[in-house]
Amino acid sequence: MDFQKMMQAPKARANALAARFGVEREGQRVRLQDGALVTTPHPKLLGNRKYHPYIQTDFAETQLELITPVTESPEELMAWLAALHDVAGRSMAKEEALWPLSMPPQLPTNQSEIKLAELDNFEDVLYRRYLARQYGRRKQMVSGIHFNFEFGETLVQALFDQQQVCQSLESFKTELYMKVTRNYLRYRWLITYLYGATPTSEPNYFVEDPGPAEPVRSIRNSAYGYRNYEDVQVSYASLERYLQDISKMVDLGHLSEEKEFYSPLRLRGGKRVQDLADSGIRYIELRNIDLQPFDRYGFYQEEAQFLQVFLLLMLWLPEEADADDWVREGDRRNDAVALERPDAMTACLPEGEWLLAEMEKMIAALHLSLPADFLSEASVALADPETTPAAQLWLASQVHSQHEVATKLAQANHYEIWQRPYQLAGFTGMELSTQILLFDAIQQGVKVTILDEADQFLQLNLQGHIEYVKNANMTAKDSYVVPLMMANKTVTKKVLAKAGFRVPKGGEYGDLATALAAYPKYDGQAIVVKPKSTNYGLGISVFKEAPAFSDYETAVRLAFAEDTAILVEEFLPGTEYRFFVLDGKVEGIMLRVPANVVGDGERTIAQLVASKNEDPLRGTHHRSPLELIQLGEIEKLMLKEQGYQVDSVPAAGVTVYLRENSNVSTGGDSIDMTDEFNEDYKAVAVAAVEALGAKISGIDLIIPDKSRLASEPGAYGIIEANFNPAMHMHVYPYQGQGRRLTMAVLQFLYPELAELNLPE
Amino acid sequence: MDFQKMMQAPKARANALAARFGVEREGQRVRLQDGALVTTPHPKLLGNRKYHPYIQTDFAETQLELITPVTESPEELMAWLAALHDVAGRSMAKEEALWPLSMPPQLPTNQSEIKLAELDNFEDVLYRRYLARQYGRRKQMVSGIHFNFEFGETLVQALFDQQQVCQSLESFKTELYMKVTRNYLRYRWLITYLYGATPTSEPNYFVEDPGPAEPVRSIRNSAYGYRNYEDVQVSYASLERYLQDISKMVDLGHLSEEKEFYSPLRLRGGKRVQDLADSGIRYIELRNIDLQPFDRYGFYQEEAQFLQVFLLLMLWLPEEADADDWVREGDRRNDAVALERPDAMTACLPEGEWLLAEMEKMIAALHLSLPADFLSEASVALADPETTPAAQLWLASQVHSQHEVATKLAQANHYEIWQRPYQLAGFTGMELSTQILLFDAIQQGVKVTILDEADQFLQLNLQGHIEYVKNANMTAKDSYVVPLMMANKTVTKKVLAKAGFRVPKGGEYGDLATALAAYPKYDGQAIVVKPKSTNYGLGISVFKEAPAFSDYETAVRLAFAEDTAILVEEFLPGTEYRFFVLDGKVEGIMLRVPANVVGDGERTIAQLVASKNEDPLRGTHHRSPLELIQLGEIEKLMLKEQGYQVDSVPAAGVTVYLRENSNVSTGGDSIDMTDEFNEDYKAVAVAAVEALGAKISGIDLIIPDKSRLASEPGAYGIIEANFNPAMHMHVYPYQGQGRRLTMAVLQFLYPELAELNLPE
Repeated sequence: MDFQKMMQAPKARANALAARFGVEREGQRVRLQDGALVTTPHPKLLGNRKYHPYIQTDFAETQLELITPVTESPEELMAWLAALHDVAGRSMAKEEALWPLSMPPQLPTNQSEIKLAELDNFEDVLYRRYLARQYGRRKQMVSGIHFNFEFGETLVQALFDQQQVCQSLESFKTELYMKVTRNYLRYRWLITYLYGATPTSEPNYFVEDPGPAEPVRSIRNSAYGYRNYEDVQVSYASLERYLQDISKMVDLGHLSEEKEFYSPLRLRGGKRVQDLADSGIRYIELRNIDLQPFDRYGFYQEEAQFLQVFLLLMLWLPEEADADDWVREGDRRNDAVALERPDAMTACLPEGEWLLAEMEKMIAALHLSLPADFLSEASVALADPETTPAAQLWLASQVHSQHEVATKLAQANHYEIWQRPYQLAGFTGMELSTQILLFDAIQQGVKVTILDEADQFLQLNLQGHIEYVKNANMTAKDSYVVPLMMANKTVTKKVLAKAGFRVPKGGEYGDLATALAAYPKYDGQAIVVKPKSTNYGLGISVFKEAPAFSDYETAVRLAFAEDTAILVEEFLPGTEYRFFVLDGKVEGIMLRVPANVVGDGERTIAQLVASKNEDPLRGTHHRSPLELIQLGEIEKLMLKEQGYQVDSVPAAGVTVYLRENSNVSTGGDSIDMTDEFNEDYKAVAVAAVEALGAKISGIDLIIPDKSRLASEPGAYGIIEANFNPAMHMHVYPYQGQGRRLTMAVLQFLYPELAELNLPE
Repeated sequence: MDFQKMMQAPKARANALAARFGVEREGQRVRLQDGALVTTPHPKLLGNRKYHPYIQTDFAETQLELITPVTESPEELMAWLAALHDVAGRSMAKEEALWPLSMPPQLPTNQSEIKLAELDNFEDVLYRRYLARQYGRRKQMVSGIHFNFEFGETLVQALFDQQQVCQSLESFKTELYMKVTRNYLRYRWLITYLYGATPTSEPNYFVEDPGPAEPVRSIRNSAYGYRNYEDVQVSYASLERYLQDISKMVDLGHLSEEKEFYSPLRLRGGKRVQDLADSGIRYIELRNIDLQPFDRYGFYQEEAQFLQVFLLLMLWLPEEADADDWVREGDRRNDAVALERPDAMTACLPEGEWLLAEMEKMIAALHLSLPADFLSEASVALADPETTPAAQLWLASQVHSQHEVATKLAQANHYEIWQRPYQLAGFTGMELSTQILLFDAIQQGVKVTILDEADQFLQLNLQGHIEYVKNANMTAKDSYVVPLMMANKTVTKKVLAKAGFRVPKGGEYGDLATALAAYPKYDGQAIVVKPKSTNYGLGISVFKEAPAFSDYETAVRLAFAEDTAILVEEFLPGTEYRFFVLDGKVEGIMLRVPANVVGDGERTIAQLVASKNEDPLRGTHHRSPLELIQLGEIEKLMLKEQGYQVDSVPAAGVTVYLRENSNVSTGGDSIDMTDEFNEDYKAVAVAAVEALGAKISGIDLIIPDKSRLASEPGAYGIIEANFNPAMHMHVYPYQGQGRRLTMAVLQFLYPELAELNLPE
């Protein structure tokens, strides 16, 4: 089959970059302070390793394994990898960090002190014990990246459609991947050269056996790395041969079981090796990628993209007839390159240059849409070995030690992870509540599929139990009519009033004339005029004293500017509290204070605002727990009413409000009050939410004096109930204790989590 | 207490017209053809009389009683009365109609042939038997209007706040209503004069006893009407006296029980008469209103408003000290006026003129916002007795007979009721699906509260079982996430694809550049380009042949004009069918055909459109089963593409399409296909809706050939699922059998209806 020709067909070309990606990243937990291997068990916060799809332990108890789901692009892959680092990083003790190198930090003198992963499944434990005996515990402590790659369905189909050799798509895929595999094994030395990053070992690594003359490019990918013994020989001439040989090795006792067969590229199909005979090859797993020391995630997006194009090249390039010779030559070259000094030119330079030139040709022939400088990093690295990560790491280590470099990198990554603890890296484009829920789901081992990122739409899956969540709080637990009811303030009030709750009396008006004619009805009364259904405090006028007609008219016009119907309601004096109710329980009570600054007698209001806005909790568009305080028209008007201007200097201790409304979305402060309330007000909130038939709601109560009994007349009034309450402000309040509402939502959706998370 | 002064206080004045209203309308069922009393039982379609809140039988099996709920305005009252007439009228056999007069049509010679209402409650039956014995069956056949009236809470409170006499609001209310009652009894002759409409009787009415010298103003309100015997004397001096007297009458055996006490105005509080002692008077019921023969509902809005202002006047006017004398004088005058000739001036003219003058003064003093000609109808009637309904009816009857006049009126009302059978009078401003659901709920005796008319938001209540419904199909049976999922086409497709259903393949694009760059992916393919989440077929381009790039670009831009994200999908050839699925069952299958006309070789397209638009099924804004066909820009463009213009004359039999999309909302035709499909396609629709977790959904399947098995590859594709499917188009299709989806929804919400509706 002439793949070069087939790949250039328009349909194949257009889909050449379609692919699916996954990464497993291993890494040792170390002490933040000094980079020493920890002795603590796997973090409890990370749920149950029996089924955790994202965060596991590899060989040792200290060795985390982060496993991304299958993703459709390098961007998505990196988003997940970033998120997993955030979750793992913030679920470990705050004094622990992830070691950024493939080579482990200093190991115990006695290798028996290296604790195997404490797994529940006895078979898994037995296998680790076997590996420890067979290869020694030290070699198993090396970490790396496993890169799972599958050519896109549309690409494979387009190629398949052009040939007659294979009858079935499955057999064609197997042929395709076998070719890629052979060529990859042949040319993989380039990957070792470009991404090798294990130049030297730390103390107690080479103990029983001697190591190479360090520094090298990649101890891990050299003959000194973890690999099968010489007696294990497997051919890649065909999938049949491959499977037969592995079986033979097991039969001969050279391997304990099939999965012990270790190679830089693993063929993947079903669950076990021999499933490949039925499934055919569905994707491949590259296992020869060292952790990139200078990258926060040990791997980076351009690297993923380079590996993808490199694998396309493996399909594009011809191969030689004798598969075993071809692979053997590849092994030879790789092993040689791995042991070259990292700062030396490689002996394979001419072939490297040829590979990059071929890659460039292929990119042009396939019109691949890639950055213009796509090949420059690799070209520079070939020409100047000092720019390779192995050389970089080795060079940096010359100042003090590799240990110090790695510890500092671990500390820097740790700082980044804890800098904005509310965010979830990789998904910072989503609303904050969804980011936090995602964090919790990943932490608990609930599988997440992001059905629509822009729409905050998630599918959750815990061992087959599927739930859908939008905006972190819209779930199947609430019914269709409930949010519709809450969206309509008149309906909400009618239902609550009928159920016996105190709501502000008033009227709804559908046109200006009727609303104005109703003025005498409210004569002499404190009132609120507001649009019927819009949100965020827009178009609301509060008259704590009965308004003159002209003021009433202005307020009515203001409200009509926001909606086609308005409400005029009695004003209920008191403080407004947001009660977040979930499944019949108040999970958080929030006092929201309008945007404000407190004077210090020195700085102007503008300076005070700028200073308050420096708080990392403040941001924009619901991507931070609090919003930046603005200094727009509304704020300036509000200042003017109090006799201030933007450059006024308020006296020390004086609070200056910049907004009338207390919404956090307009720069207000959130103050947790959950523990300040007695059960009776909580019972009112719970009962009112129940009267609306809701399971999750943020309900707003006006309370003049919370020391009074809720049953006293006028003790409270209910303003509205919210079907999309901002949960993030409860989780990370401006003041007071945070309430992990997202975890409460997760536990509400998955009551079985309590059981599953019992100690293993 | 000086009510005149109290009523003029600003707060009272502003709320003077606040009130609550209710009407009971009785009426005999007659044969449409000849106006003869029917012999059929109470209509089966009207559910169960044991609890029916809206439609009951009064004394006789032929005598319907329509009972509005309590309403807050004359407009709302009339809306309900109109709706009840529609429901009752269209639930009776089509050969039956409602007799428009208070006096019954010709009665059987033998009064025992008048069938008492066949009620389930034996006590009710016994009471009717007693009345029949005591007063004769004939008098019980008279029908009328009962007008329930309550002064608004805000008005009563404003009055209460100005006095010291009564300590409690309840006792104040009782005082207030007692005054109104005495004055009403004193001056009610004016109501008899203005609204009396029983000038003559039909054969076999006056049989045992002689009648008056006909014509009169109101037989029903005269001494010849149904009233207690002379020995029943009850004082209105105070509520205590009133209750004592009634008790005494029962003790003396003049009344069988308290409710037998009959008066033109009944005091209402609790359920039974003696409850008034505890509850106080909460409202009053006027029972002396004759049916208005020339009004479709026997009652009209201006009449309700006049009665309201008249009752306000009764509060406003002074009364004389001796209550019994005062009431007796009123009885005297009323009885005299009732028996005056309808075309004669009344002897009470001076008092009538004084009452209207006082009313005018009061209206001015209270600044009541009433039409300028509010009093003119009454003034004219006083001056010209021939304009009174009694005179009008009598005069009209002179041509042939009162029977013929009444039969013709019944026929005209019947015509109106059946003219647009899909509409529900009184609520035609609501979406049609909601109107139909309202109809069904009223018919089945499910109580309806319209929480928000503009928002199509209903509360349903069947004997305490409450359900909320919006847009007739949004209920608590579906979960919050389901509509959110369906609103997002990408999420819908992902979920359906994961569950194994065939959905069109394609991609989502968030910006123009990416969408345009994706063109090669679709090269050579038939595709559809559409906005991600908008509806009604806007911005959709269908390419049944692979488009050139320029056409693709146009389509992409068109779609982006409607939404911030677009979908490009493979085009699935075939016919699109809408499957309406409810609770795991396909309740209707609809073929929608784009707006079209069929040529006749004579008329122009514009003429054909105008003619097709004359169908009463066609209207606008979802208030009719079908929409009017437009001749706007899009239609003209579509015509042009086919070589037509608006004034082209298509050949006979040629179908000319005016739209590409088949939406009924753009003038398309709906064709019911429910019985044309085998179970296997229905099973697919049901399973797909279940995969989305939905209970109510309209799901769109593309089917190239419905004679093929649904299991064959490519037999179907799912385009989208709708969370707010237009139900009305299934109920009243352009062609084929209507499917009463609204009733299915009701039965889904209330499975207990099946049990309740078993024969009594």
